[in-house]
Amino acid sequence: MPPRPLALRLIPERLARRSKTSKRSPAGRNHGNREGNSLKKIVGAVAVLLSPCLACGQKAGSPTPAQAVQAVREYRMENENRIVRELSEFLAIPNIASDTSNIQKNAAHLVEMLEARGIETHLLPITGRGPVVFGKLISPEAKRTVIFYAHYDGQPVDPAAWTDGAPFEPVLRSAAIEAGGKRIPFTGNGAGARAAYNDDWRIYARSASDDKSPIVALLAALDALRAKAIPLAVNLKVILEGEEEAGSPNLQRTLELHKNLLGADLLITADGPVHQSGRPLVFFGNRGDIGLDITVYGPVRALHSGHYGNWAPNPAMALSRLLAAMKDEDGRVLIAGFYDDVTPLGEAEKKALAAMPENDPDLERELGIAKPEGAGKKLVELIMEPSLNVRGLRSAYVGSQAQNVVPDRAEASLDVRLVRGEDPQKKFDQIAEFIRRQGFYAIDHEPTMEERRAHARIAKVIYEGGYRASRTAMDLPVSQALVKVVEDATEGSTVIAPALGGSVPMYIFEDLGLPWIGVPIVNYDNHQHSSDENLRLGHFWRGMEIYGAILADLNW
Amino acid sequence: MPPRPLALRLIPERLARRSKTSKRSPAGRNHGNREGNSLKKIVGAVAVLLSPCLACGQKAGSPTPAQAVQAVREYRMENENRIVRELSEFLAIPNIASDTSNIQKNAAHLVEMLEARGIETHLLPITGRGPVVFGKLISPEAKRTVIFYAHYDGQPVDPAAWTDGAPFEPVLRSAAIEAGGKRIPFTGNGAGARAAYNDDWRIYARSASDDKSPIVALLAALDALRAKAIPLAVNLKVILEGEEEAGSPNLQRTLELHKNLLGADLLITADGPVHQSGRPLVFFGNRGDIGLDITVYGPVRALHSGHYGNWAPNPAMALSRLLAAMKDEDGRVLIAGFYDDVTPLGEAEKKALAAMPENDPDLERELGIAKPEGAGKKLVELIMEPSLNVRGLRSAYVGSQAQNVVPDRAEASLDVRLVRGEDPQKKFDQIAEFIRRQGFYAIDHEPTMEERRAHARIAKVIYEGGYRASRTAMDLPVSQALVKVVEDATEGSTVIAPALGGSVPMYIFEDLGLPWIGVPIVNYDNHQHSSDENLRLGHFWRGMEIYGAILADLNW
Repeated sequence: MPPRPLALRLIPERLARRSKTSKRSPAGRNHGNREGNSLKKIVGAVAVLLSPCLACGQKAGSPTPAQAVQAVREYRMENENRIVRELSEFLAIPNIASDTSNIQKNAAHLVEMLEARGIETHLLPITGRGPVVFGKLISPEAKRTVIFYAHYDGQPVDPAAWTDGAPFEPVLRSAAIEAGGKRIPFTGNGAGARAAYNDDWRIYARSASDDKSPIVALLAALDALRAKAIPLAVNLKVILEGEEEAGSPNLQRTLELHKNLLGADLLITADGPVHQSGRPLVFFGNRGDIGLDITVYGPVRALHSGHYGNWAPNPAMALSRLLAAMKDEDGRVLIAGFYDDVTPLGEAEKKALAAMPENDPDLERELGIAKPEGAGKKLVELIMEPSLNVRGLRSAYVGSQAQNVVPDRAEASLDVRLVRGEDPQKKFDQIAEFIRRQGFYAIDHEPTMEERRAHARIAKVIYEGGYRASRTAMDLPVSQALVKVVEDATEGSTVIAPALGGSVPMYIFEDLGLPWIGVPIVNYDNHQHSSDENLRLGHFWRGMEIYGAILADLNW
Repeated sequence: MPPRPLALRLIPERLARRSKTSKRSPAGRNHGNREGNSLKKIVGAVAVLLSPCLACGQKAGSPTPAQAVQAVREYRMENENRIVRELSEFLAIPNIASDTSNIQKNAAHLVEMLEARGIETHLLPITGRGPVVFGKLISPEAKRTVIFYAHYDGQPVDPAAWTDGAPFEPVLRSAAIEAGGKRIPFTGNGAGARAAYNDDWRIYARSASDDKSPIVALLAALDALRAKAIPLAVNLKVILEGEEEAGSPNLQRTLELHKNLLGADLLITADGPVHQSGRPLVFFGNRGDIGLDITVYGPVRALHSGHYGNWAPNPAMALSRLLAAMKDEDGRVLIAGFYDDVTPLGEAEKKALAAMPENDPDLERELGIAKPEGAGKKLVELIMEPSLNVRGLRSAYVGSQAQNVVPDRAEASLDVRLVRGEDPQKKFDQIAEFIRRQGFYAIDHEPTMEERRAHARIAKVIYEGGYRASRTAMDLPVSQALVKVVEDATEGSTVIAPALGGSVPMYIFEDLGLPWIGVPIVNYDNHQHSSDENLRLGHFWRGMEIYGAILADLNW
C-alpha cells in the first residue's frame, strides 16, 4: 500500500521556527521551558560547530578508526558537561510507552535534538502512542546508508523501589550503589568543564542505559566528528521507537507504511548491554521466541485427597510426567523434530564462538549453579540452539495454603527460543504433536463434560504466538567491515557474538531486506528493566567513540 | 499424671439452678434469652418424660432393633417440631472454634441439653477454646459402656458465599438448593405437630450436618426410648469436642488428663456423612495422613530465559522429573518400601469390601473421569492402600502473568495417606530417602550459597507432621454386634466399610485402649465444610432410629 504523506521538516525552516517558538511551546510548562532554555544553549553550541562542518566535512581525508576515536575523545573531554546535560535533560522526561502525553513529549524533544544537528526528521505516527521518530542525514559522497535503531521509551517504574525514589530525576553517583556509590552533584553549568566526570561515575534514572543513552552517544559522536572536521563515511538514518518496552506492537506495520524512507545497507541496533566481561560487544543475531500454556485436567472439581486419592487422576502428576518427558537429564529436548530445522552455524560463526570469552565458571559461582545443563557445552554454544523452558507451574496450593485435595487442574507455562531456520508455528505444532503422542487429547478450550468422560488425559494447549529468530551472516562484507571498524576502535578488545540468547523482533528489519548488527554500548550491570537503572560514564564515553569510528570509517 | 479435679454437676442441683438463673444469664442478651426460654419448654417436656423413665426403664423387656426403630419413629412423628426446634436453636449459636466467646456459649448450651436428660456433665477445659463436654449416663443393669463422640464446632464461614447470607440463622427449604428447594417457614411452635416435616426438607446452617445434628439425634433417640419405656442396653458416655475443625490440637492431651472418666468398651464416632449411595454406613477405620513440602532450587535468582535457557538448570523441570519418578502410570507408588508395612486386611474386611456397593461408574460420570488410577481396582479397594498425592505445585508464574525466566525455585506440596501398620515418621523417611536416591541433596532449610555451588540438585523437604491410621477389626465381638444392630435397624440396607479414605485422629481413642466404629447419619450431599451446609431431615430421622436401636440393643 502507498505510504502516508509525511510532514517533512527541512532543516532551515525548522531551525528558524525553533528559535521563534521555543518560549511559547505549549508543552513547556514543566520540563518544556527548562528543556527549551537548556537545549537552546546546547543547540547554540552545536550550531557554531555545524557551519564549519557542513562547509568542510568532505574535504578532510578519512582518518583511521583509532584516529576517529581519538578525535571523539578529545571533543568529549572538552564537552562532558554539555553531553551529560543533554542526556540528563532527556532522562527527565518520563517515558513509559503507555503515558501518551509524556511519551509524545519525548518524541518532540528528540525532534529538537535531531534537527539541531541538521537531521531531516519525520514523525511516523502511532495512534495513542509515541511515534517512530525517523531521521535522515545525507553525506554527499557516501555510497552506503546505515540505519541506527534505538528506543526512547522505558520500562514501567515503581518509584518506591528506587534508592532515590524518583526514576525521572537523574542522580549522579560516585560508583554503583552496590559498590557504595554516593550522590554527587552534577558539575557546573559551564559549557566547557574539560574532563569533569570520572569514568566510574554513574547516572541513575529510568532509561539511563535502556535505551536513551545510545541516542545521545550517537548524536555526541556526530557533533565530535563535525567539530573535528571529520566527514561521515555513510549516510545516517535513525529509527527511534517509542514502544519497544511495550512489545513493539506497531513497529512492523508502521515501518511497512513508510518503507520508502527506509532504503539502507545496514541497520545497527543499539539496544542492550555489552558483554558480561565488560568488554565491548558486536552481535549478529538473536533468538526468536514463542510462548505456550498447557493445562492438564483432573476431576471436574478438586476432590478430598483422602476419599479419592489413589483413584482420581492427579493432574499435577500427569503434568509433571508430561514435562519430564520433554527433556532429558542434560536438557536435550526430546520432542520429535525439535532440532531438525536449525540452520547450522557457518565457519565465521564457529570461529567467533570459539573466540568468545569463557566466563561460565564466574557465572556459575555468581548464580549458585553447581552443574549447568547442556552436557558440558558452553553457555555461548547453548544459546545458538533452540531451547524449551518451563517458566512457571501452578496447581492448587503449596506451603501453608496447601489443602488436602486432588487438584482439578495443573498449569505450566513454557517459552521456547528459536534459532535461525525455525518457524514459530511449526515449532508449536511439534510440541502439540508431542503432547498428543504422550496420550493427551489436546484442545484449545476448557474441556466439556463429554470430553472429560471420553478422554483419560486432556491438555488445553494455548499458543501465545511469537516470532522467528534473526541472524546476519558474519561473513558478509558489511559484517566483516563493521567488525573491523569496531575492533580497530577498541584495540581489539571487542567480543564478537554470532547471536544473543534473548529475543528482539529484529526479523522486522530482516523482512525489510536489511542486514542488521547489534552494537550495544552500556554497562552490563545497568539494572535494565528494574529499579536503580544506571549508566556507567566510562561505557558511555567508549560508546561515543565506537559510534564515531563507525560513522567516520564504515566502508565496504 | 493425676487428673485435674472436676466441677461435678449433679442433676438435681443443676436442674434447680437452671430454673433460678435462666432469666438473668449474662450470656443471654441475644441468643441466650431465646434459648433459655425455648430450652425451658423443651426441658420441661423432657422432664415429664424423665421421671417415668427413671422409674420404669429397667423393668421393660428388651425390644428388637426393629421394635426400637419403630418406637423412636413413633415418638419422633409426635415430636418433630420440638426436635427441629432444639436443633435449630443449637445451630443459631455461632460455633467457629476460634470464636472463644461463642464456642463457650455452645458448650454451656450443650451442658443444659445434656443435664436436661439427666446426664452427668463435666467440662474438660481448654484454655481459650471450647471445652470438651463430657457426659455420663449410667444404666444400672448395663454391663457395657459406649462413648459417643461428636464435635460441636464448625468450619469457618464466608456468609457472602451462602445463598441465604447468614450461616447461623437456620433456614428450612423444601429440597436441596441445587434441586430448586424453596424457603419454607418452620412449622408452628406447638409442642406436638405430628409428622409436620417432609423427609426431603432440609435445614441450612453451619454444622447442620457437621456435626451438631448427630448430637441432637442421639438425645432425641434417648428421649424416645424413655418415652416408650425402653431401657438402655449400655451405659452412655459422650465426648463432645469444640475444636475438631481446628485440627483437634488439644484433644489427646485433654483426654489423657481426664483418663479416669473414659472407661468404656466402645467409642462410636458420629462425624461424617453416610455412603454416596444414600444408604446408611458403618465404618471401622480411616487412613492416617502426613503432609510434606518439597522445594527444588534453580539459580539463586530467576534468570532471563533467553540469555540463560538451555544452560541454567530449571527447577520446575527438575521437580517434574522428581514427582514423575514417584508413581507409575497406574498410580502405583515407586518409593522403596512404600507398601511394606501395610497390615493386610482380614477375611471379614475382604468380605465387607466385596459386598460394598459398586458406584464407581456413577462417580466417574459425575466427576468427568474417563479412567481412574489404580489399574482397574475399585475406589473402595484403593483407599485401603496408602496413597501419595500431589496437592499443589508452584513455580514463578503462568498464564497472563508468565515471565520469560528460568525460575529460581519450584515447590510441590504432597499429602500421603497411611493405612494400618504404617508409621508416619518412617513414611516420611522413605520419601526423603527416595528424593536423595534421585540425586538430590535433601535439606530442611534454604540452601546456602556454598550448598548451591556444591550440589547440582537440592531439595528442601519439610515434614509437616501427621498421624497414623486407625482401624478396628471387623471380627471383634463388639464389631459384629454393632453391625447386627444397625443392619437390623435398617432392614439390611447398611453399607459396611472396613475404613474410609479420609483422616480423623481416631488413633487418640485407640491409644486410650478403645475400639472405635463410625456410625454417621447425615446425607452425603451436605456441603460439609463449604457454604450452604445442610441436613436432609429424612437422614436425620433415620439417624435417630439407628442411634435408638444401638442404645436399646447393643450387646455382646
